Amino acid sequence: MADDGATKHKVVIIGGGFGGLLAAQGLDKQPVDVTMIDRRNFHLFQPLLYQVATGGLSPANIASPLRGILRHQRNTRVLLGEVIGFDLTAKHVQLKDGTEVPFDSLIVATGSTHHYFGNDKWEEFAPGLKTIEDATEIRRRVLSAFERAERSTDAAERARLLTFVVVGGGPTGVEMAGAIRELALHTMRYDFRAIDPATCKVIIVEGQNRVLGAFHESLSAKALRALNGMGIEVKLDCHVTEITATSVTVKPDGGKAEPYKIETANVVWGAGVKGSPLGKILAKAAGIETDRAGRVPVNGDCTISNRPDIFVVGDLASFKGADGKPLPGLAPVAIQQGQYVASTIVRRLKGESPGGNFKYWDKGSMATIGRAQAVGESMGIRFSGYIAWLGWLFIHVLYIARFENRVLVMIQWFWNYVTRNRAARLITGERSTDARSG
Amino acid sequence: MADDGATKHKVVIIGGGFGGLLAAQGLDKQPVDVTMIDRRNFHLFQPLLYQVATGGLSPANIASPLRGILRHQRNTRVLLGEVIGFDLTAKHVQLKDGTEVPFDSLIVATGSTHHYFGNDKWEEFAPGLKTIEDATEIRRRVLSAFERAERSTDAAERARLLTFVVVGGGPTGVEMAGAIRELALHTMRYDFRAIDPATCKVIIVEGQNRVLGAFHESLSAKALRALNGMGIEVKLDCHVTEITATSVTVKPDGGKAEPYKIETANVVWGAGVKGSPLGKILAKAAGIETDRAGRVPVNGDCTISNRPDIFVVGDLASFKGADGKPLPGLAPVAIQQGQYVASTIVRRLKGESPGGNFKYWDKGSMATIGRAQAVGESMGIRFSGYIAWLGWLFIHVLYIARFENRVLVMIQWFWNYVTRNRAARLITGERSTDARSG
Repeated sequence: MADDGATKHKVVIIGGGFGGLLAAQGLDKQPVDVTMIDRRNFHLFQPLLYQVATGGLSPANIASPLRGILRHQRNTRVLLGEVIGFDLTAKHVQLKDGTEVPFDSLIVATGSTHHYFGNDKWEEFAPGLKTIEDATEIRRRVLSAFERAERSTDAAERARLLTFVVVGGGPTGVEMAGAIRELALHTMRYDFRAIDPATCKVIIVEGQNRVLGAFHESLSAKALRALNGMGIEVKLDCHVTEITATSVTVKPDGGKAEPYKIETANVVWGAGVKGSPLGKILAKAAGIETDRAGRVPVNGDCTISNRPDIFVVGDLASFKGADGKPLPGLAPVAIQQGQYVASTIVRRLKGESPGGNFKYWDKGSMATIGRAQAVGESMGIRFSGYIAWLGWLFIHVLYIARFENRVLVMIQWFWNYVTRNRAARLITGERSTDARSG
Repeated sequence: MADDGATKHKVVIIGGGFGGLLAAQGLDKQPVDVTMIDRRNFHLFQPLLYQVATGGLSPANIASPLRGILRHQRNTRVLLGEVIGFDLTAKHVQLKDGTEVPFDSLIVATGSTHHYFGNDKWEEFAPGLKTIEDATEIRRRVLSAFERAERSTDAAERARLLTFVVVGGGPTGVEMAGAIRELALHTMRYDFRAIDPATCKVIIVEGQNRVLGAFHESLSAKALRALNGMGIEVKLDCHVTEITATSVTVKPDGGKAEPYKIETANVVWGAGVKGSPLGKILAKAAGIETDRAGRVPVNGDCTISNRPDIFVVGDLASFKGADGKPLPGLAPVAIQQGQYVASTIVRRLKGESPGGNFKYWDKGSMATIGRAQAVGESMGIRFSGYIAWLGWLFIHVLYIARFENRVLVMIQWFWNYVTRNRAARLITGERSTDARSG
């Protein structure tokens, strides 16, 4: 409670994503004062963001207000604010509005952001998919492209508007490409009079020699076949060298062949992420260096260098796994690290011995490709097709289960599956007098 | 079909609201070519917009893509565009992008917009509720006010942030006030640590001597009692003279008493509407005048002056009812006028005699006040309380029934009713680098 908080151990958590939220929930009913700081008032289920970007789900279906989730956790307060710095000597974090929030233990879990590998000007033409606003912006662009194509009388422009390039063949890229193709092929099949949406081209550009590089090669091959079967073109070993409003320039053959242009008005960025900017600020304050991807190197117990009171978890942390490589930026890693850090803090307060280093339990990973198409692997078993898709559905609904959106998401999905409809395909977000009436 | 369209009677409909959409649907399978022009790609169920503004429903729950609704109506094409003018001699409408769309019959149904009675600068501080963007903006403001109050250490500022003034005691004002009060009293009851949301003040300022002035006086009295019972303050006979970022100045006693200030950071405008700007453009082109509220006067058959080929329906039309007063700007009026105009066009094409003037069949009206509280009157029968609320629920679900969102809305409402939760209370819409990560 706030009134006797002065005497309690203060835990400050920055970021209400998977890592931060699970850390907060792990501290429920413990004798600590928890302050959860986030710039947004909701926890976002990022793995389903591509569904919002393609009109399958509404933002509220995959976002849950942090205050609502933590409402009955009386030792926890939620603070809507932006952290801009740290005073690690005085032990407080600095908010943009000047507030200083003191901590005894600090958990930084601000995740990752898009990484354009030094080509930040590409962002304007190739938005990434990290926030609700990203998703509704991509939705606006994709749907507007079909509208503009319907209006266009210029064949070249029409073709450009109906060409969608997804940069990156990881799970996000594959899911986006599949969803755009389904939107065109099924959902909007009868919607237009001048164009046939099914003539749209969806192209994935991937720098490696296979899609879903984190999966077993056989699953990459299966995913590629499924993508091709849906009419999606996949350019492997293909590097992007330029993105403009009307084209993407690529170099095939691992960048060795001659570059050529793909005429397109629609590019989605699913290629790279880097640690959120707060990682660099924290590293500087602690006198350490982030890695090349802007992630903060952490010890085996998720603390940084010689600060046992400061934890970094989730996408922002560079945690060396058993193979010496950093753990991937996946929700399960963040979830397990958040839980681990909470239990570490509780152990310390109880005076118990440390519980050993964090170990990531890889329960497996999955990627969905399209309607009834997915691949997955878990504990050495690989699966694909309809069964994998059902598994994907089940697990994602289960994850959302802790919040109240599960029923709505299930019904929406079932409805979409039966009718191939996507009810949330609204072009919104241009609030101006223009958009007012009519 | 587009290919033999040249020979068919061309009907152009501007606006995909209730009036325009029902007109289009009334022309299904008729030997006409229909072009539906709208600035937005969706039909909006405006009566439930206040639910989006208060986090109860998602935008997609009350909006349905026009192309989706009209997809199987093969004689109809949807055109996303903005009409900026008319050439009534050459018989075409002019779009912003330079396109000219020819018509044989024209139906203008662009509805209404906010009316600040000459004080347009109030709009910044007192947004109205007409579009999806209006609703998410009001949602952002209302939710942010509670967040800022939780952070504030200044008692006066906190009180100002927790005071909500709704200007106008019509159905929109009453619904908004009730929903904000419920949000504070129930939904967010346990969400904060520094403030008690239940201490928020919700005030309705109404210029007339009763709320819901369009209803029978006994229902106005019942609504007032229900509002007061919910802790909502209602200031009747009270005129707004100034709105700023921090206050609303009102003059009580019908504007005769001394003005005083209500300190508030949150004002919602529900007081006045006027015809959409396109009404004036059409009137000028036709050589007629709009009425004081910017509505286009129409004949008994919904045509304008001596142009039997041009119809105006819905909120934009000033149609004199049996009592000599213009029909109110309600969805049922627009729906019936849209249907009437479609059948008029069909009759003409078939060479049948005119079917008589439009007659509004007033099936009754309803207004909801809060959880299980509503008033309604239909064919001389007045009802209120729980029964009225169930009736309101039933009728609104029925209206949405023509689109596929009914199931989702019902479940969301049932869920909200049982849990008093409002899942869609997301603060979104500030797309900037600031909002990106964290």
